[in-house]
Amino acid sequence: MKLIKLFFTSLIMILSSTDIAVADTPEPSNNIDYPVGWQKWSPIAVSHRTDNNTSRVILGNSIAVEAARTGKINPWPDGAILGKVVWKDRQLKDWKAATAPGKFVHAEFMFKDSKKYNKTYGWGWARWVGLSQKPFNDGGKSCISCHTPVKNRDWTFTDPAVFPTIK
Amino acid sequence: MKLIKLFFTSLIMILSSTDIAVADTPEPSNNIDYPVGWQKWSPIAVSHRTDNNTSRVILGNSIAVEAARTGKINPWPDGAILGKVVWKDRQLKDWKAATAPGKFVHAEFMFKDSKKYNKTYGWGWARWVGLSQKPFNDGGKSCISCHTPVKNRDWTFTDPAVFPTIK
Repeated sequence: MKLIKLFFTSLIMILSSTDIAVADTPEPSNNIDYPVGWQKWSPIAVSHRTDNNTSRVILGNSIAVEAARTGKINPWPDGAILGKVVWKDRQLKDWKAATAPGKFVHAEFMFKDSKKYNKTYGWGWARWVGLSQKPFNDGGKSCISCHTPVKNRDWTFTDPAVFPTIK
Repeated sequence: MKLIKLFFTSLIMILSSTDIAVADTPEPSNNIDYPVGWQKWSPIAVSHRTDNNTSRVILGNSIAVEAARTGKINPWPDGAILGKVVWKDRQLKDWKAATAPGKFVHAEFMFKDSKKYNKTYGWGWARWVGLSQKPFNDGGKSCISCHTPVKNRDWTFTDPAVFPTIK
């Protein structure tokens, strides 16, 4: 009896944890899968937009970071993923002249694959909104529209920040 | 004769590569070893200081990032290292209302070890300046002086940015 109870308890625990894991991964945006783990990617740059009062960090997967740090970004290599994480501005409590991240707005991504995404200029465009990471789905139209002025820079606004190189 | 030549060539190559590796790792700052690999740490926050026109990303080692994302930061856990990477402001070329990283200024770090650094409030304070990463050595006096207003926040200014949690 004890063994049967243990079996069902274990089964329920396994099923529950699976359900949670699946349920918690956001649905695709523009048919692109959520890039699980982006929150631990490395920085490529930061930016502060005073037109809409937002603070940003631009992150990359390992391929993008390697390309950024070595200046091989026009074009960016296939496999590179760039992430832009956006927060509303907030004044830093203990340093009034500093702007810091406030409310989380969204995380948006560019997935470089010159073949797969050849109809959208070599990039897959995706965005997940709010802390619930609700997928944005317009086929990338608004992303492409905004990024058109930088089409000669492989569609990216970001100038990678300069980091000291230590061998 | 060939073997002797090969031996000495190999020896010279080994010694040279060792020399290069050692020479390229910056000297300690305030007796603290350079945290090799910080350029690939994950972000904790960003900030933009309008009093001295600098853009910053605040990074952490894995212990610090875990603490930041779960709000366990007063006190920060032993082993946590926080890094603040500072650039002079630059206007983003293709988006005039955005400030982006320009010239690299320095990278400064706080190393949490409540026992080892108990004389300096539980933190080791270090800074490496410029792209050559020249160590700054004042025993942490200037760091501590500036951070004294936030001593009740375990000596840190940074409010970790909110990131969406995906399991």
